[in-house]
Amino acid sequence: MASEFELIDLFKDIGSKYYSKNSIIIPPGDDCAAFTSSKPIVTSVDSSIEDIHFPKDIKPSLIAYRSIAVALSDIAAMGCRPIAFSISISNLINNREWYEDFASGVKEISDEYEIPLIGGDFVKGPLNINVIVYGEPYNKAILKRNGAREGDGIYISEQVGRAKQGLNELKSGLKESINTNYYLKPKPKFALGEKISEIASACIDTSDGLLVDLKHLLDSSGVGAEIYLDEIPITKDINDVNAGDDYDLCFTVPSKANITNFYKIGEVTNDKSIKFFSEKGYDISIEGYEHFK
Amino acid sequence: MASEFELIDLFKDIGSKYYSKNSIIIPPGDDCAAFTSSKPIVTSVDSSIEDIHFPKDIKPSLIAYRSIAVALSDIAAMGCRPIAFSISISNLINNREWYEDFASGVKEISDEYEIPLIGGDFVKGPLNINVIVYGEPYNKAILKRNGAREGDGIYISEQVGRAKQGLNELKSGLKESINTNYYLKPKPKFALGEKISEIASACIDTSDGLLVDLKHLLDSSGVGAEIYLDEIPITKDINDVNAGDDYDLCFTVPSKANITNFYKIGEVTNDKSIKFFSEKGYDISIEGYEHFK
Repeated sequence: MASEFELIDLFKDIGSKYYSKNSIIIPPGDDCAAFTSSKPIVTSVDSSIEDIHFPKDIKPSLIAYRSIAVALSDIAAMGCRPIAFSISISNLINNREWYEDFASGVKEISDEYEIPLIGGDFVKGPLNINVIVYGEPYNKAILKRNGAREGDGIYISEQVGRAKQGLNELKSGLKESINTNYYLKPKPKFALGEKISEIASACIDTSDGLLVDLKHLLDSSGVGAEIYLDEIPITKDINDVNAGDDYDLCFTVPSKANITNFYKIGEVTNDKSIKFFSEKGYDISIEGYEHFK
Repeated sequence: MASEFELIDLFKDIGSKYYSKNSIIIPPGDDCAAFTSSKPIVTSVDSSIEDIHFPKDIKPSLIAYRSIAVALSDIAAMGCRPIAFSISISNLINNREWYEDFASGVKEISDEYEIPLIGGDFVKGPLNINVIVYGEPYNKAILKRNGAREGDGIYISEQVGRAKQGLNELKSGLKESINTNYYLKPKPKFALGEKISEIASACIDTSDGLLVDLKHLLDSSGVGAEIYLDEIPITKDINDVNAGDDYDLCFTVPSKANITNFYKIGEVTNDKSIKFFSEKGYDISIEGYEHFK
């Protein structure tokens, strides 16, 4: 049995070596943490719940890693670099081993992206991990969802459906594979976000499914699209265009920009509908994860 | 039954009239919100759980108001002004009426402090409200816990135990009184924080109990104190010095500073212990709410 203060001790120094690099002027341990930046601050919160956002019975270190990674993906989707993060943990378990393993997952991703943990909260309740992320632009540009315009190309950087495949493999009892790792330890696309931050007209991360997330982007921009289903790299079958958890970036780029090495999957239109084209005969509609449906 | 998107609609414009005043440059609806500030950013997250942080069966609007107020109190404790807040809601209920009432509480406190809601998350799970707050210094100074020095006076601004009294009244079936309001709708001490931000040497908000929170401040500062129990304004009895939920500020001020209109309850010493003095014969030890104890 661990006390709240023992638990705080497990977490309080995670990433402390990155305070200076990220201009953290008040570290955890006060009523608030504080940091400085000469640029705009981007911020988001993501909640991860057992059996919804991660399977029951995965290791606490993986719960930690994944919950933080998916939150960081929102910073990458803005074309920004991460500064710091906080975690609020609700858990019914209070044995020290659980928290030690959880903290090791927090430390791993803190070191991977050189970002410190700057705050959090512990409460006793059903397992629920809330991660708050803070970031700033690499240069000046911040990518938004609402900038897509007629004629822009629509791009993704990786094949869709790998996370779903990984989750299915996990559920079937497989412990570790390339796909299970892809699901359990998503890699926020910071380098990609930086690369496209000055040329893309709009961007979103693909957490709920490529098509439903693309639809959010198009709706925000007040436009539609023609989608070339045959051009979308799939893992198992065409339903992968509706598979969640990939955490790739889906972005639009004006046609005059020079962009290579990505999958062009369609074009933005002024018509507000989404039209699918396939010579292979694929037939698909948009589905996506919606809570409370 | 409400869909996630209907719920988002209930919340997306709360406090939008304060975007400009608080330099919100990307409102909710994107992967992240964004704001600018020429000053340091202070930030904190607070988790509120049914039956721990608020009683079962209080109105959703009060759950919302209270959860946000206690999070904002951390900004006040830093002597800072609030800029914005986000809310992550886990709830098993998904009827529209619950969320409409909850949103009305969010709107009330947003208007009271002129701060916008800039983000959040909805998940289906046991009731758990996480509130993230963002602030900046009024001028330059940020109050911390670690600046108390020998000879500093120790102050509070209000009588202790009113929130506990309010909670007891609620539990005994009373619907509304000055005390129940004090418990249900705590008022973060922003004006007080601003007033003392340039003269106090250290500050903390009294969420867990005056004595235990004062002990956190003294430990952070590496000092001790002599406490004059007879000088502490109490509500019911001397045990109120260990009652939580008051959300006053407890702060230390160098002896040479001129400060009036507050309760001086003790003095900082170099000895790391806390000594209690009472001519009335009060005998007390430090207790405070600790999760997982």
